[in-house]
Amino acid sequence: MPDPVNLAAKLATFGQRWSPRIVSRFNGHDVMVVKGEGEFVWHAHPDTDDFFLVLQGHLTIQLRDGEVRLGPGDLHVVPRGVEHRPVAHGEVHLLLIEPAGTPNTGDEATAAVKVVA
Amino acid sequence: MPDPVNLAAKLATFGQRWSPRIVSRFNGHDVMVVKGEGEFVWHAHPDTDDFFLVLQGHLTIQLRDGEVRLGPGDLHVVPRGVEHRPVAHGEVHLLLIEPAGTPNTGDEATAAVKVVA
Repeated sequence: MPDPVNLAAKLATFGQRWSPRIVSRFNGHDVMVVKGEGEFVWHAHPDTDDFFLVLQGHLTIQLRDGEVRLGPGDLHVVPRGVEHRPVAHGEVHLLLIEPAGTPNTGDEATAAVKVVA
Repeated sequence: MPDPVNLAAKLATFGQRWSPRIVSRFNGHDVMVVKGEGEFVWHAHPDTDDFFLVLQGHLTIQLRDGEVRLGPGDLHVVPRGVEHRPVAHGEVHLLLIEPAGTPNTGDEATAAVKVVA
């Protein structure tokens, strides 16, 4: 009898910021939870859209020509190739979905290692 | 300045059960919210995993050899080809992700039309 993945329980197992934890797989994508705080880096993913769902807290996704402000239960997809910078106001908990192997900064050299939670 | 998609606000715009509303697109997939109540049909998707995230309420995903019980904040991915039947206990609100054009019953003849919310 498989257990479901409880997102809050997974988030309670770690404290690191901007360090995604893989909680499931879906059609070749990693389904991840991440804790953010403060500014992430400007980046873009040339080959994938970037899925953000805020589970807790408040996140601004800065774009070169504006920004998107998200609170709990808000979802936004940044289209592929669009430069953006996530900025968390206090601690924020996110559900992210990316093709398996996608570097979170858009660049292998600076990407966080994704760990299976 | 794009607005994020608030899932609860989208869910508040309709009452139909098992009638998915598309709220965003992601890498060729439809991102949808749906309200469920009672039993859905047994089905399988031969070519896609089936992503369920419970936003509100309680859902059992019956499998031929067991079941997965989900509450708020619980996520489960049914692998492609695996027969399953979602059963909602009272009203349940879900986030679903499927490749664009996937029939929700696994069968074009019986599938609900997906509407953009």
